Amino acid sequence: MIRPRLRDLGINIGVLPTGPNNAITDVEGVLIGHKTLIYDEPSITRTGVTAVLPRPVDAWKDYACAGFFSFNGAGEMTGMHWLEESGLLTSPIILTNTFEVGTAFQALMAYGRRRGYIPTFALPVVAETWDGWLNDAGAFAIAQEHVVEALESAQTGPVAEGNVGGGTGMMCHDFKGGIGTASRLASCPCGDFTVGVLVQANHGDRTDLRVDGVPVGKVLDYTRIPNPWAVTRPHSSSIIIIVATDAPLIPTQCQRLARHATIGLARDGGMGHNGSGDLFLAFSTANHIMGDSEDPFDVCMLPHPQMNVLFDALAEAVEEAILNALCAAETMTGFRGHTAYALPQDELQSIMRGYRRL
Amino acid sequence: MIRPRLRDLGINIGVLPTGPNNAITDVEGVLIGHKTLIYDEPSITRTGVTAVLPRPVDAWKDYACAGFFSFNGAGEMTGMHWLEESGLLTSPIILTNTFEVGTAFQALMAYGRRRGYIPTFALPVVAETWDGWLNDAGAFAIAQEHVVEALESAQTGPVAEGNVGGGTGMMCHDFKGGIGTASRLASCPCGDFTVGVLVQANHGDRTDLRVDGVPVGKVLDYTRIPNPWAVTRPHSSSIIIIVATDAPLIPTQCQRLARHATIGLARDGGMGHNGSGDLFLAFSTANHIMGDSEDPFDVCMLPHPQMNVLFDALAEAVEEAILNALCAAETMTGFRGHTAYALPQDELQSIMRGYRRL
Amino acid sequence: MIRPRLRDLGINIGVLPTGPNNAITDVEGVLIGHKTLIYDEPSITRTGVTAVLPRPVDAWKDYACAGFFSFNGAGEMTGMHWLEESGLLTSPIILTNTFEVGTAFQALMAYGRRRGYIPTFALPVVAETWDGWLNDAGAFAIAQEHVVEALESAQTGPVAEGNVGGGTGMMCHDFKGGIGTASRLASCPCGDFTVGVLVQANHGDRTDLRVDGVPVGKVLDYTRIPNPWAVTRPHSSSIIIIVATDAPLIPTQCQRLARHATIGLARDGGMGHNGSGDLFLAFSTANHIMGDSEDPFDVCMLPHPQMNVLFDALAEAVEEAILNALCAAETMTGFRGHTAYALPQDELQSIMRGYRRL
Amino acid sequence: MIRPRLRDLGINIGVLPTGPNNAITDVEGVLIGHKTLIYDEPSITRTGVTAVLPRPVDAWKDYACAGFFSFNGAGEMTGMHWLEESGLLTSPIILTNTFEVGTAFQALMAYGRRRGYIPTFALPVVAETWDGWLNDAGAFAIAQEHVVEALESAQTGPVAEGNVGGGTGMMCHDFKGGIGTASRLASCPCGDFTVGVLVQANHGDRTDLRVDGVPVGKVLDYTRIPNPWAVTRPHSSSIIIIVATDAPLIPTQCQRLARHATIGLARDGGMGHNGSGDLFLAFSTANHIMGDSEDPFDVCMLPHPQMNVLFDALAEAVEEAILNALCAAETMTGFRGHTAYALPQDELQSIMRGYRRL
Repeated sequence: MIRPRLRDLGINIGVLPTGPNNAITDVEGVLIGHKTLIYDEPSITRTGVTAVLPRPVDAWKDYACAGFFSFNGAGEMTGMHWLEESGLLTSPIILTNTFEVGTAFQALMAYGRRRGYIPTFALPVVAETWDGWLNDAGAFAIAQEHVVEALESAQTGPVAEGNVGGGTGMMCHDFKGGIGTASRLASCPCGDFTVGVLVQANHGDRTDLRVDGVPVGKVLDYTRIPNPWAVTRPHSSSIIIIVATDAPLIPTQCQRLARHATIGLARDGGMGHNGSGDLFLAFSTANHIMGDSEDPFDVCMLPHPQMNVLFDALAEAVEEAILNALCAAETMTGFRGHTAYALPQDELQSIMRGYRRL
Repeated sequence: MIRPRLRDLGINIGVLPTGPNNAITDVEGVLIGHKTLIYDEPSITRTGVTAVLPRPVDAWKDYACAGFFSFNGAGEMTGMHWLEESGLLTSPIILTNTFEVGTAFQALMAYGRRRGYIPTFALPVVAETWDGWLNDAGAFAIAQEHVVEALESAQTGPVAEGNVGGGTGMMCHDFKGGIGTASRLASCPCGDFTVGVLVQANHGDRTDLRVDGVPVGKVLDYTRIPNPWAVTRPHSSSIIIIVATDAPLIPTQCQRLARHATIGLARDGGMGHNGSGDLFLAFSTANHIMGDSEDPFDVCMLPHPQMNVLFDALAEAVEEAILNALCAAETMTGFRGHTAYALPQDELQSIMRGYRRL
Repeated sequence: MIRPRLRDLGINIGVLPTGPNNAITDVEGVLIGHKTLIYDEPSITRTGVTAVLPRPVDAWKDYACAGFFSFNGAGEMTGMHWLEESGLLTSPIILTNTFEVGTAFQALMAYGRRRGYIPTFALPVVAETWDGWLNDAGAFAIAQEHVVEALESAQTGPVAEGNVGGGTGMMCHDFKGGIGTASRLASCPCGDFTVGVLVQANHGDRTDLRVDGVPVGKVLDYTRIPNPWAVTRPHSSSIIIIVATDAPLIPTQCQRLARHATIGLARDGGMGHNGSGDLFLAFSTANHIMGDSEDPFDVCMLPHPQMNVLFDALAEAVEEAILNALCAAETMTGFRGHTAYALPQDELQSIMRGYRRL
Repeated sequence: MIRPRLRDLGINIGVLPTGPNNAITDVEGVLIGHKTLIYDEPSITRTGVTAVLPRPVDAWKDYACAGFFSFNGAGEMTGMHWLEESGLLTSPIILTNTFEVGTAFQALMAYGRRRGYIPTFALPVVAETWDGWLNDAGAFAIAQEHVVEALESAQTGPVAEGNVGGGTGMMCHDFKGGIGTASRLASCPCGDFTVGVLVQANHGDRTDLRVDGVPVGKVLDYTRIPNPWAVTRPHSSSIIIIVATDAPLIPTQCQRLARHATIGLARDGGMGHNGSGDLFLAFSTANHIMGDSEDPFDVCMLPHPQMNVLFDALAEAVEEAILNALCAAETMTGFRGHTAYALPQDELQSIMRGYRRL
């Protein structure tokens, strides 16, 4: 049974319309694939891999303009030196757990090479958050073939959220977190565009959680929802935010978009605490930068002032994607018997009602 | 008559205690001076200068560790190349209007030179926001002596807010904006510190305004408070955030603090829209870096994990400082008969009550 | 009498052909204007202003793609927050002395406003190096009209070098320095482009000077050329490098170009010493970004691999522009009787011959 | 037989004295370990791993202040988001080939975990250059145990150069390249310090090579030294520069040092061409930042002006380390029969003599 998404609870973030699936895949051409590993033998495994494909095929040579921002850099996202130098995203993106960044990197290299996508070399993008409270991370359960499965199962349409893929063992605001997604339609004066967001949400303290401005984390009935994580967690954790849009952006504008993702994070109570790797990557599918082009080519650029609508859409989509992760994720017991509790949806609704927001 | 501050209305932001004046001057040694120019002849003048002194004396040679962040760079803050290279703040800070950055720069140079503070050269810090809707900016009303007056009148204690100093002609979320300040006490495991914030708030759209999470901007009764600015303003505007702390931070940690100021801005509905210069500078008074030292010296450094408390304090202080600017600023009519309306405090309270936040 | 340029001495840097004037003005549309102030009453004045116009007219609304790099940030170049945010150069560039940055800023604002170039606001670009050893900088000799004169006298064709404009009172490698320029033709596979460079050279120690790899600074006969500067100078100084090209670059590529200017500087013995403001700005004239465009527009982008030829051209042009400044600048006596000696061209040739480079 | 180092040929770079081993290990506490893989079955393998230990033990919890600079970002160096956020180096550094970044990352994770160095998580530093012309990189020959061997064999004293460790299959200026090292003693007014450099040199075109300013690459007798690489190489390559010093630097100063490494690279003819990952990391061993400290601690800071001597020392050490890599590396035949030729030392000496530099 799939838990209701935030909107299904009657809670609507912002004023802009969503795309058809309220997901990053509403940006045409973007595909998402998950590989989820949940089992108890030989190790308590609650982890996985999520693949974000900026192009249905050929991400390795049909480059997308892209930008990066590290709001709080206690995390890893490989490939960023080249992305910042070139302004281009030149590979699929893999999200996984901290201890498997290398495995995912090797898997992308081997896969790309086998498929002929890497004639000489590549600088692939792998990002992580830490799931070692629910997952026996030291068992290194992810193998290269799991990464390939995520890549090859990537598809358009609705995106599974919560305890799936790279988000399987993640925590968010001390509740069970994971993968979340959302999208918004942005009507710029010059045309209509879509902004889609996917998060691997593993950040935040419980008391900081805000839902549409309501201090839910502060007023929750803690006698009902225990918070063992708050007692035993070793450190604050992280969030990866991937932003996609079909608006015609040059790399500089993608950087702006990546940086502005901070707004949505902050609205939900994200703080960028010390140990949190809050790393954001934004790409635009509109321009196709062919890696082998020998002629100058035209890159379409949105007038800067019209980015305002994208910033608005982005803030709403990030805000909702994180809450979608919280809504979708179910209570999970894992490594060392740790239990991460799902955000109680009925209590959330009750609180929102109390604040006259529902 | 001074309008009540946000707290006087019964609206408390966050959970941390404020300093004695709930102002940036709660950080010992930090002084604030304002010079306000309001007159109608020979030009409609609604502008001024605010001086931030990181040291009671000797800011020119007793340097403070400092960091900078540009959340949306459509603004000017001079001196940042050297501040980022050295990690040091080596002059007082002047806030004024866009058209007077040069005047303030010259004033600092001439003043520093006259006083013997600049043996050879200096790279002073001048930041701006745009007040050309209420102020006849093209009249260039500010003279160097006004800057000197702001510097020389700088003092500790309560800080005037609203239509004063550099904030005189500023707008915020389509209401009258200006200078605001706030502070928080941060109890880190290793000691108690103060985080103080001063903003020159000239940013934001009305509908984006949030107060403690309540979407005030969306539910205000617009029949009561007209918004001529929304019709005739030429572009989105800017916010300068100055952060001071007595926590012992190295420059890298000041950079972190500057970047995290985004959180508080976002909580109030700040968006970093295209034309907005959202520029943040953070400094720590704890370490005294003497410009003429010939020996290596010890710089005291807070353990990184304890920055979390500072981040929390900062978010609350920024959130409240902006709202304090809105609370303090009174309705003003200026250039071309433009009227900027004060945020209606009674309506604010009524809305907050409606959302059960008061 | 104009002193010979480096090439006139038989010393050729690199292998690429120069443009017709071996000057930044070889990039079509780029104009240079100088205003030089040399007089002894009422103050010993050896200073000036240089204007770089990226467009023959309309730099204020026909924006150029641009990028910035601070190799060693002990200097000022205003306008960089917006240039980095937008990727655009939106005003002419003024070079002058450290103490007149504000004056130049005000002059640009007033001029732009008077001419109608600034409908609302602007964030102009003013850069500086320090001439206080030869110039009585504290007398603040530059007035706004001098800046306007530099702007209005800007022209294409040969560019005056040495003791002119912003370079009037500057030092370089302990010799008399100032303005220098050079250009190269870059034959990329996809077309022929020009890279032009203008420097305001006020950096470097004498012993570090290298000419085409020859350690000229180490082997000069010091009994012949005294170096009073080395004894009395208060600190190391700065270099501003402006790079122009007609190659079709997006802002990310302009950033790359700006960063790579370091190569040419290093080849001449530039070190980026502590007090040196080594600030580089690169712009491309190829794309015309109209500030008032309401439709998306096409920006032409060179394939990244073809930037190699531009990097090569740039390194040579920077290397030669600095040496051209040294060749053009004549011995000057100024403030407090300080004398800065011209690089002795005959000795330079003799040394080059000794190293079999001539 | 070990080929002579540059100094053994009578060619001395710069004027500062070297440390006892003219190696990065002259900085006390820094250890270097290599694991070299050269064999023809089952795949043509010419690759390896180099480990740089910033501390003899405990690099995982006795952190060093550090800074990073990407001169041209077409490469990978993991861990940089956290290094830039914290200013700290929190793990050993592994250098290897592009296709094994993931393997090295996993090896560090598994090793650190096994040894108890990683109580919760880590963000290790792995950097790469591409050896796929001499090495069958697609065979993925490096295993985790090779990385452990490099780590565990790390030692002080002389450092093997050329075709060893991560440098085994690398090219430099179209000659055989690889690992190089050098050091300089820097006498600052306040004390004597050592600057050590280690490079994995895999960059540059033959014609760009300069030795002590002499255009060796342009005048070499090409009939004697064939250059098959120039014909068949797929792209320009990369250089990793690791800088160590015992001077007391804060992170901001380490950043400055990293950025200034560009000078030495440029002096040798490095260009930062498009496909080249020119990534520089600098760390200071002087301050011991204990990851588990709960009290504020003192960090010793060199007065900024005294960094000039470090910049000078660094430029010389980088310049010489690259040339040491070229001198040490022997002719190698590898993948697909490609042969990379050693820099001919006799011809180098003869050219230097011709230019009266020997």
